[in-house]
Amino acid sequence: MEKNNYVIIMAGGIGSRFWPFSRTSYPKQFHDVLGVGKSLLQQTVERFDGICPEENIYIVTNEDYKDLVFEQLPFLNEDQVLLEPVGRNTAPCIAYAAYKIWQKNKQANLVVTPADHIILKEDIFKEKVNMALAATKTDDILVTIGITPTRPDTGYGYIQYMQEENKNDIFKVKTFTEKPEKELAEKFIESGDFVWNAGIFVWNIRAIIHAFQAHLPEIADIFRTGKDKYYTADEPAFINETYSLCKNISIDYGIMEKAENVFVVLGDFGWSDLGTWKSLYDVKEKDKNNSVLDGKIKMYDSKNCIVKTPKERLVVLEGLDGYIVAEYDNVLMVCRMDNEQQVKKFVADIKADKKEEFY
Amino acid sequence: MEKNNYVIIMAGGIGSRFWPFSRTSYPKQFHDVLGVGKSLLQQTVERFDGICPEENIYIVTNEDYKDLVFEQLPFLNEDQVLLEPVGRNTAPCIAYAAYKIWQKNKQANLVVTPADHIILKEDIFKEKVNMALAATKTDDILVTIGITPTRPDTGYGYIQYMQEENKNDIFKVKTFTEKPEKELAEKFIESGDFVWNAGIFVWNIRAIIHAFQAHLPEIADIFRTGKDKYYTADEPAFINETYSLCKNISIDYGIMEKAENVFVVLGDFGWSDLGTWKSLYDVKEKDKNNSVLDGKIKMYDSKNCIVKTPKERLVVLEGLDGYIVAEYDNVLMVCRMDNEQQVKKFVADIKADKKEEFY
Repeated sequence: MEKNNYVIIMAGGIGSRFWPFSRTSYPKQFHDVLGVGKSLLQQTVERFDGICPEENIYIVTNEDYKDLVFEQLPFLNEDQVLLEPVGRNTAPCIAYAAYKIWQKNKQANLVVTPADHIILKEDIFKEKVNMALAATKTDDILVTIGITPTRPDTGYGYIQYMQEENKNDIFKVKTFTEKPEKELAEKFIESGDFVWNAGIFVWNIRAIIHAFQAHLPEIADIFRTGKDKYYTADEPAFINETYSLCKNISIDYGIMEKAENVFVVLGDFGWSDLGTWKSLYDVKEKDKNNSVLDGKIKMYDSKNCIVKTPKERLVVLEGLDGYIVAEYDNVLMVCRMDNEQQVKKFVADIKADKKEEFY
Repeated sequence: MEKNNYVIIMAGGIGSRFWPFSRTSYPKQFHDVLGVGKSLLQQTVERFDGICPEENIYIVTNEDYKDLVFEQLPFLNEDQVLLEPVGRNTAPCIAYAAYKIWQKNKQANLVVTPADHIILKEDIFKEKVNMALAATKTDDILVTIGITPTRPDTGYGYIQYMQEENKNDIFKVKTFTEKPEKELAEKFIESGDFVWNAGIFVWNIRAIIHAFQAHLPEIADIFRTGKDKYYTADEPAFINETYSLCKNISIDYGIMEKAENVFVVLGDFGWSDLGTWKSLYDVKEKDKNNSVLDGKIKMYDSKNCIVKTPKERLVVLEGLDGYIVAEYDNVLMVCRMDNEQQVKKFVADIKADKKEEFY
């Protein structure tokens, strides 16, 4: 195992489209969403077994989730858990981790990944990540993982790559397009040279530091001034003072869309961002009623549903076709799967009611 | 108030069509089904305020519910609570109470009523009951209360009465028909001389004792042999030994359909047997979505529903039209109101699973 390999796991989000499971006090990544006995965060960490040493795994999360992270990943030491006082999207999160690691290891070769995605074919995933790491060990390039799209989803970012310009199956990226309209997404799929942006990145520490300096210099300046504080008792105070000064910007918009040295590795390893209930439904095996059930559930004349309810509760459903039925921590939601974009509205309405225990 | 008036409240049933609220361990009559702060049993008792003295109220129930009865009606003494060791339908239940009261008061004038019905217009109800009691005080007749039918319901019993043969608005009964087929029920409604059998009876103690001796002599024999045990410490042992020997038979089938001296008082006092969720939906006031909600419930694009859920639970419903959503004591049910006859099947299936905590 390469001692210079590092993994940065971004675990600060809330995933409100996955409500009522994903809640401010207990977001999606800390849940055993798949019902396998491990949280998404724990599964994400395990996925890098053999790729990087345990002491090189860094978790960036909101300070509210510090205890949850240590509870779920007890092997971590304090230096490996980076606490954001406020959420500022992915660019500041990655900059903090990169500038911190730069202080320790200037040969570091990094993988950046969200904590709340799933990958069904871990062997292929590891192969692709190792392929990217082999390239970034020597080349100062920014590599992203692209997923072969299966539908014109308007919720993802799309990467157009150049099939001709590749070296060992690492392709030069031509454009990034965030969440296109339906018609455009359909054209992307037809053209055959677009893949989904999985939000998983590979680069060496020089390349990403250079990219921040070139494309997000204000953010670079903030984290560079902390160089003597990282890995010391002064780090938390420095971050608490400065983090909120960062602008709220994604790594895609801030760097990937602007940089010239962006490449993509194509992956077909059963990926899902598990952004919504339907995405969980899509990846899970269906029963004879074409449903996905997790709980003590009896179905009568019902099909095409996803049901996830507390295991102690008996749930009897009659006459439901294409519904989400989800209960967690004193909130029950029944919603048509086709209307699941409404879930964000439910959460917004409850926030407006100031019922903190329910969102 | 007439000191010879007695009320016998039958509170031994389970009401399984009202599952998951009505459960073996906590049947419907002990619930505050209407959300008014009183159980159906408590409401039933209050309904006779002014008709009979408190000490003349007798509750017949299963021995499993003894504690529930005393908890909800603390003014009762032990003699007023008659405990069935097993359920044997209404005829043995009424016979037990009648033979017991006969021992105490041979002038008793009785009202028999289920514990789990609702009556919205209590004044009219009292007026009708007093009218019947006035008649049975002198006449040895069997009076039942008939409800003007509003639909060809196939779940009720129908009483055909003779409009011509009446004395002070008490009509002679021609036939009883239990749960007719749809076509027959429609004909009954058209004919105009049928009413629903509310299961509320009025008679004096001589008339009902005589009716048991004439039409159900085996049951009469059993309870007559206990005459020296009633109101003594030997009563429970006697009942435990003999009650199960009674055949399982309703008062309608065993006596009312056979006797010649049966009369009906017509009532239009907002009665419902609350047999099913739809019957509760029918009697309750609807909100702007034509729904009946009891709980902390948010509805989106939903209508024509009845929702009754624990008050601490937030329930968000999207895209439901005509559904029952009911949660009680660790059981959640979602079922189309039009298919509510299925509720009995759910309960039967759960019994087959031997999951006692859920039925």
